[in-house]
Formats: sequence, C-alpha cells, structure tokens
Amino acid sequence: MYRDKTCGELRLTDEGQSVKLAGWVQRSRKMGGMTFIDLRDRYGITQIVFNQEINPELCEAANALGREFVVQVTGKVTERTSKNKNIPTGEIEIIADGLKTLNRSDIPPFTIEDNTDGGDDLRMKYRYLDLRRPCVRKNLELRHRMAFEIRRYLDSKGFLEIETPILVKSTPEGARDFVVPSRMNPGEFYALPQSPQLFKQLLMVSGYDRYFQIAKCFRDEDLRADRQPEFTQIDCEMSFVEQEDVIDMFEGLVKHIFKYVKEIDFADPFPRMTWHDAMRLYGSDKPDIRFGMPFVEITDLVKGKGFSVMDDAEITVGIVAKGCAAYTRKQIDQLTDFVKRPQIGAKGLVWVKIEADGSIKSSVGKFFTEDQLRQWAEKMEAECGDLMLVMSGDAMKTRKQLCELRLEMGNRLGLRDKNVFAPLWIIDFPLFEWDEETQRYYAMHHPFTSPNPEDIPLLHSDTGKVRATAYDIVVNGTELGGGSIRIHDAELQDTMFELLGFTPERAQEQFGFLMNAFKFGAPPHGGLALGFDRFVSILAGLDTIRDVIAFPKNNSGRDVMNESPSTIDQTQLDELCLRIELPKE
Amino acid sequence: MYRDKTCGELRLTDEGQSVKLAGWVQRSRKMGGMTFIDLRDRYGITQIVFNQEINPELCEAANALGREFVVQVTGKVTERTSKNKNIPTGEIEIIADGLKTLNRSDIPPFTIEDNTDGGDDLRMKYRYLDLRRPCVRKNLELRHRMAFEIRRYLDSKGFLEIETPILVKSTPEGARDFVVPSRMNPGEFYALPQSPQLFKQLLMVSGYDRYFQIAKCFRDEDLRADRQPEFTQIDCEMSFVEQEDVIDMFEGLVKHIFKYVKEIDFADPFPRMTWHDAMRLYGSDKPDIRFGMPFVEITDLVKGKGFSVMDDAEITVGIVAKGCAAYTRKQIDQLTDFVKRPQIGAKGLVWVKIEADGSIKSSVGKFFTEDQLRQWAEKMEAECGDLMLVMSGDAMKTRKQLCELRLEMGNRLGLRDKNVFAPLWIIDFPLFEWDEETQRYYAMHHPFTSPNPEDIPLLHSDTGKVRATAYDIVVNGTELGGGSIRIHDAELQDTMFELLGFTPERAQEQFGFLMNAFKFGAPPHGGLALGFDRFVSILAGLDTIRDVIAFPKNNSGRDVMNESPSTIDQTQLDELCLRIELPKE
Repeated sequence: MYRDKTCGELRLTDEGQSVKLAGWVQRSRKMGGMTFIDLRDRYGITQIVFNQEINPELCEAANALGREFVVQVTGKVTERTSKNKNIPTGEIEIIADGLKTLNRSDIPPFTIEDNTDGGDDLRMKYRYLDLRRPCVRKNLELRHRMAFEIRRYLDSKGFLEIETPILVKSTPEGARDFVVPSRMNPGEFYALPQSPQLFKQLLMVSGYDRYFQIAKCFRDEDLRADRQPEFTQIDCEMSFVEQEDVIDMFEGLVKHIFKYVKEIDFADPFPRMTWHDAMRLYGSDKPDIRFGMPFVEITDLVKGKGFSVMDDAEITVGIVAKGCAAYTRKQIDQLTDFVKRPQIGAKGLVWVKIEADGSIKSSVGKFFTEDQLRQWAEKMEAECGDLMLVMSGDAMKTRKQLCELRLEMGNRLGLRDKNVFAPLWIIDFPLFEWDEETQRYYAMHHPFTSPNPEDIPLLHSDTGKVRATAYDIVVNGTELGGGSIRIHDAELQDTMFELLGFTPERAQEQFGFLMNAFKFGAPPHGGLALGFDRFVSILAGLDTIRDVIAFPKNNSGRDVMNESPSTIDQTQLDELCLRIELPKE
Repeated sequence: MYRDKTCGELRLTDEGQSVKLAGWVQRSRKMGGMTFIDLRDRYGITQIVFNQEINPELCEAANALGREFVVQVTGKVTERTSKNKNIPTGEIEIIADGLKTLNRSDIPPFTIEDNTDGGDDLRMKYRYLDLRRPCVRKNLELRHRMAFEIRRYLDSKGFLEIETPILVKSTPEGARDFVVPSRMNPGEFYALPQSPQLFKQLLMVSGYDRYFQIAKCFRDEDLRADRQPEFTQIDCEMSFVEQEDVIDMFEGLVKHIFKYVKEIDFADPFPRMTWHDAMRLYGSDKPDIRFGMPFVEITDLVKGKGFSVMDDAEITVGIVAKGCAAYTRKQIDQLTDFVKRPQIGAKGLVWVKIEADGSIKSSVGKFFTEDQLRQWAEKMEAECGDLMLVMSGDAMKTRKQLCELRLEMGNRLGLRDKNVFAPLWIIDFPLFEWDEETQRYYAMHHPFTSPNPEDIPLLHSDTGKVRATAYDIVVNGTELGGGSIRIHDAELQDTMFELLGFTPERAQEQFGFLMNAFKFGAPPHGGLALGFDRFVSILAGLDTIRDVIAFPKNNSGRDVMNESPSTIDQTQLDELCLRIELPKE
C-alpha cells in the first residue's frame, strides 16, 4: 500500500501520529520559509507543510511539484495554528518528513475545482480530468449509494435481480433499435434492448414472481438535450399483484432511497392524482406539486361578454400568483413574452391585479366590468395583493401553455426549491390515444397494458374513455418512471389488438412470440420501470442526466473523449458481409 | 394481491389458518373421493385437497385442471395424515374451500421437473418453461445472492460501482469486437466492450481509487462449448496498491462469498503457486488442487537405458495413482486410449504397477530392470499397491498431456468432489511469450502489465525470464479470474512497447488515448476481473456457464427461443448507410 491513511480522515484526535498519504497536488503555496501543499484524493484534502529551515532539501522538492502531480508523503499529524473550518481535516496538517513523486503531470487544461475555468466541450474531451472535480465525484458516489440501496430494498422484499440479454431480437415497432451485425449469421442482426420488457414478462411466465434489474437500455433516437443513447433503468415486475400492490412496493422503494440516501422521511403516503385531474389542474401529466397555483377554469364567466378572444376560445383558464399585484409593467411584459416564445406559442396573456387596497387593474379592463373581474377573483380565490394570469384557446394547447407559465412563476417566486421533494402518483391514464391523422387508436403505453377492470364494458362502446391500469411516479415535475398491470387473459388481449387495428396475422407476426409463451399459464402480473439516471439527477438537484453518467455522449451520440464512434477495418466489414454506402452529397 | 401466503411457507404451526395461495398446478391425482393438487410457485409446493363428498362442485373444478394451469386457492391449513418428509411444507395440506382458474395452459412440451423429459434443444426453445424447473431456478437464485454479496463486500471496502459505457470505441487488436453502426455518424461504428479495461484505468487516473462493476462484456469469437457472446465480469481496480494489496482484497471477496453464500469458512490464506511450479507440478496454469498427484520428473533416471522413446524425449514425467496397482488390463487400456485421443494427442502411456506384495509389473519391463523401476518408484514416492503412469516427449506438450491424465485419474478416483472447493493463486506469470512463427515477443496479458520490479534489470538482457506482476485465481482447476499491477511510469511503458515491437507511432495510434490520459498524473494502480458466470457455475457445481444464464445463446450465437439474430428492414439498413453483400455460394 502506498498509503496508510486517506486525505479525508485525519482529525485532531490523530495528533502526533506518523502517517503516509498519497494523492494529487491540488495546489501549493510558499509563505515565509514554509511551503504548503493541499494534497487531494477521493476522500478529501489534507494540508502538508514543508519547512525550509528544518529540511531545506525536502522543501525544495515540494517547491518543484506542479498541479496534479501524484505524490506520496510521510509525516506527523499536527494541530494547525490557523484552522480551516470549511473542510473536515481543517484542524490538522502534516509536517512532512518524506516526499516521493509517484508521477508527474502536464498542466491540466482546466482547474480541478467545482468552479472550474473549463468549458463544457473541453471538460468532455478531458472527461478523466473532469471526473476529478469533487462536484462530479459526488454525483457518481450518490449514484453508487442509490444503486446499492435500491438493491438492498428489493432484495429484502424477495426480488431477484436477473440479467437479461443485451444482444436481443430486433422489433420493428416503437423507437429505433441500435443493431449489431452477426458475423456467424451473415445478413442478420441483433438489436440492443430498448428495455427488458419482453424478458421480464417472460420471467413472470417462468414463475420468478419478483424480478428486478438495474439494466442498460438503448434507443437510437435523435438526441434532445437530456437524452442519452444508452441509459439505465430500474426495471421491475411482479406476479399475482394488482395496481395497489405495485404502487405500495415502489412507493416503499422511493421512500427507502430518500430515507437512507437523503435522510428524508416521508411519513405519509404519496399523493395520487388521476391523469384527468393532472391535466385539468396543472396542464401536465407530470405536475410539479412543490407548490400549488392550480388552474381555475373561468370559461363560463367570460363567454358572451363581447371579448372575442374569450368568446371564441374553447376554454379560459387562469392561475393566481400570490402577492404579485405589485408586478411592474416590465415584469408583466416579460411574462407575456415568455408565453409568446415559439416553444410555448401562446398568442397573449391576460392579467388582472387585485391591488393591496382592493382596487382592480387589468389588461382586459376595456372588455370586463370591475364586477365581472371580481367574479373571476372569487372563482379563482384571488385576494388583495394577488395577480391573476389568464389564458384562452383550445383546451389542450392552452393548458400546456399555462403549465409552462405556472412553472415559470414557480421559479420566479422561489417555490421550486431543489432541496424539497414532492413525489406524486399519476393514475388512471387513458388506455388509448386517438390519432387524428391516421384516424385510429394507439396504445398510450403498450398493447399489453390492462384496461381498468371497471371500464372493460366500455371497450367497444366508449373506447376513448377506457382507463388503463397504468401509473406514473412523478417527482418535482419530472417523470421518474411508470408502469402498468399487464393483460394476462388471451381473449382480452385479442380484443385489444382488434381495437388497435391489428389483424390477427399482424398481431401474431409482431407479438406472437410473447403470445405463445402466454399460452402456457401466464400469471396475472404487472410492474414498473424507473429511470435510474433521472432518479440520481433528481436527488443530486441537477437538471440533466449527463452529469450523473461517468462517460456520457454528446448530442450527436459521440464520445468526444475517445472519439467514438469511428471507422472500422475493411476486413471486419467483409467478415460481417457489409458494405458502407454513404449518400452522395 | 392474489395470495396472502406463498406455496413454500406454511408449516404445522400455521394449522387452522385460512389462507389464499396462487401458483401453478404441478400435478393432480384422484384417490378415493379426494383430489390432490400439488400447487407450485417460486417458493415451493403445497398440497391442496378437494373432497368430493363435502364440496362436489369444487372437486369437479379441481379435476378439470391441467398441468401448469394458474390457479388461486383459498382454504384452511390442516395437518396431513401421511406426511411428506421430503418437502418443507410436507406436514400440512390445504383443505380447499375456493378455487379460481387464473389462466389455462397448453400441455407443456416437457415436464416441469428437475429430471425432465425435455432434451436440450427443446428446453432452449421453450426456455421460459425450462426456467420453471426448480434446479434452473436455484441457479438464478444463487446468481442473485452472489451478486448481492459481492456488492455488499465491495461496498463495505469503499469500492464505488461505476457504470462504464456499452457503446465504446472499436480497437483493432485483441479478440474481435461486436460493432454497432451509428446512424447519426454514417459509416462509423461503436464497438461493444470486451471488458471495461480502458475505462477502469481512466477512472484510476480520475482518482476514483476503488472501482468495481458487475459488467456485461462482449466477444465476437467462434463459440466453444462453454463460451457466450455476452458474459458478465466482476471488474475491479484499485489505486496506490501493490500486488499483495490486490490479492488480499479479492481473496477477502472470494472468502466472503463462500462464507455468506455457501457457509464455507476458509480460515487459512489461499495457497499460492508460481506459474513455473504450476506448469512443472501440474502441467497447467490452473491446476486442480483438490487432490495431490503432482508430476515427478524422472528424466535423468530413464535416459541412456536404451529405450529410445525415453532417450529421445526432452522429459519423462509421471504421476502416482494411489492404490491402483490392481487396475486390470482393460482399465489401463482405457487410460492409454484416453491419452491417445486426438484432443490430447499422446503417442502412448507407460505404466508401472507396484503390487501389494511389492513385486513390480510394467509395460516397459523389457527395457528397464526391476531395480531401475524401483528407483522410479522411490523418486515418485510410489508405494505398494500404487500405479505409476509415465509419459515422455517434448516438455510443454507432455506436461499438458499428463495434466489431462491426472484430471482423468482424479475423476476416476473420486477426488474431484463438487462440494469441495480448492482456491489457489497463481503468481509470477512470465511477462512475455515468445512466438516462434513471428519471431517476436508478445505480452502474455496486455502491454500495460507491470514487470516484477526485481526483474526490471532483465528487461533487455533476459526478456523471456522477466516475471509479470500478474496473478490468477483458480478454483478446482478453473480460472476464476486474474489481473495485474499496471505500468504507471511513462518511461517503463515506452520500454515495454519497444520490447513488444511497437514503433512509437504505432503505440501512439493504438494506445495514445490512454497514454495521453496518463500524462496528467496517473497513480500506481492495479486490479483484477473475475468471471461472474464462471464463479456462479463453480458454486453451483455445474460444468457450463450456460446453466447460470437466464437466456443464453447457443454455439452459433443464436437465441433459439426468440429466433435472434434476424433480418432487419431495408429502411433501417438505408438509414445506417449499409448494404448486405452475402458471399456467393
């Protein structure tokens, strides 16, 4: 061992001990006849002192060290005269009596500090140096701790972690697969799994009863800001369960993680909201309920008053910004500009201020009497000092726009504290989505999602109204995961295929393999998958999953550190019976 | 929940309880006016009783159940009159008062029992039914338990599990990569990792200090009986360590697994053997030391006695089969045939019996006097009643042949008990292997393996003699894993490349990326990887890793269950800018 202590563990109680440390030179400074080195490793930073008078040779050697040199130091733990309260080792320092340079370092292209001077591109190119920064390391430590606690919880509940294959069968439906040419089966391809869905359902058929896996999944999609071509999922499935059992089990998991990783206890059950209420009250199937500010519809109060915008609108709906009546013209203009941005696409924003003295000001004062506006306030429960923000238009679109405005107001009012966590179950999703273009129903989740048993009589008569036995878990406005109870009854499955416009032949062709397995005694089963990268990023208080992945790819799916993907040899292409045909420019 | 108890948990102490069970019909039999159903789930089997007289309707329903139907049963726990001592629930049965068929089953193509009537191909095609067999389930349960305990041990030692990418850079050296065409980077490919070697060394450069990962690895090789295109590795790396530290840590891991999974305590340190001794004494770098029977060289005793086979041979070496002097002609012929099989390729086998009365018989009695043969016996420590088996020829070849014979004798003499575990470290591997054909040295492990510091002076003068700081761990004659201390010194690395015949340009081209990272303060580091599938199969007492993988592939890399790999759409090929060109027959 090159060390007997780490750079994070020595305290005043260790005073007088002779120790051996190894690590990286964070920085060095000369003061008077002394040289101070901050020695860093994964566990912390310890100050090393070299004295020019006592040991000039050693001090010279210390002076020659550059940033990020790797050194081994021996010395004695001593109480500091000027203590550093900011770090756990700040009460001691090591008076060095030995120093060995284990390796030199070129000058790193950016500083190895939380507030680094390196830009995003540079840090990604030198990701191995970026990973040295404590803030990045903390994310990966959190990730490790969470994975460990997830496994501890699920193991204690009798779940078995079972590895399913990475080289799987390509399926034409759904998102695009990454494919892997097979040399031994020329002209044929494996796919990388988008999720272990098929295998976990097979494991239920096999009687494994409680399965989980922290599994790599792959999707060849055009990458948006926060997508990665490979990502990690906490994939779970249970047999002999109903929706309530699955929700109970995984609410328990989420609570366990918050408790053992963040020391946050959720005493009460997580709130639940139907998909319908979520859309109606927050304009989103993943509302951020760290704050209220629910939507209030005032459509019937505003229609027929001669204001054509609202007369022609399907709905008029608003939110109340508490205490914002004092907003300036400029502030309100900013909000109007915000909703008019092309990403949101609203035509405008109506505002009504109820001033502290009870008087009313509004952008639609010309069209509505003060009494009428007071009726709005009453319905919306706005009080003196509040600001009402109101939008009109097509129901779905308007709700989505108002949803963005509500989140923006939450940000402005400081209601979205990253250290507050508000989990929420969304239930009763619709089973089907109607597509105007193709004039047919699509499965909102997948064709194996079970309808709510109460709604089975509606399957043919009122298809669009049928609720799924599907559930999502949302934290702070982000979808953490979701799942469903699956259909295990062959007849019901046939009905589903029929409603989704599959001929029996096409159903057999695409799902026949699973359907055949289901013929041999499929138990009732259901499950859920949580996005692990997302879960970590929520607990880390980060906006992107990239920061919780050791070696992420950029938006073009490239690893700029090792320059992959890259070309391969002609020999290998020949072995795979493949030829590249680039499009002519 | 469809059940409140499992089929494995009820005992006599539960007598009188009303319970609800769910599971699969293992079998049913009618006796007198009673119908008995063995209900199976993951946890066990519970007997359910239906009484024709008490509830004829329910009994009729039970009689209609077929094998593998999924049912829910309610009833009362009752003491059995004729107890079944073979199963933990054998003292009770459930007197049914309710029965619901949750799903029907077609007749399975083979019986769901440890001793099934299904052949290998049929079971692989219906792997989801094969997985129902208790003996297969036990393997996956063991695998889960081992993975969990591996993580528990490594976490307790401060290791972080860090996920490294599956979509990585293709490297031309080494085994063949599986490649993944990139749609977003046309004409370019990712590779699937053969191991996370590069990333784990980078993580050491990043200061992560103690890394591990239970990682999927991929190798596009022609599959021998016990290889899989995707396999799982326990991949580990540590910084600031020497060989002794790594061996200590992972000996601790292996002991932990044996203790907490198999309840076997290894009090003593695992034995260690140099590679040289292993080759000399057992003709293998992975000797099975559950039994002794070491090689004894008698070359100097046999040369110049006029027996040309031995005169011309580089070595003559033998083993002693204790108590086998009574072997019949036929038994000895079998052994001779065994070593002459083309897989082993020996020309013949010399035997010497020391009969119980001390007299000597031998296949080479014509060439050697009894006194001479007694000298052999003395050197080989053979006693009355023993059989000496002796082979001659080229040193390496003969040792390998004798190694096979030794293992065969171990089998015949029952010395290779699957419930006995004999771990062993092999150390001091040669750093280089000389290749006659290309007349150059190759790295026995990889070019980053550190030489034994004592042998650095020999690097140029006696290259072939230089020992690596590399180690393997072997259990029962199977390589469980291995690793090495890596080179972290740039100069030493350059020397290695030079000795391996790399020009600086080619070294830069192939390994430049890692070398560049090493310029920024690489710490001394080393590690090890254990084959996880192999580890599980050893503890399960199985000969192949296929039995410990939920969904394995066959020798052509095919999953016969879901018929992958398979063809993909032309659209997808077009998107990938690829064209298939099958060779003309």
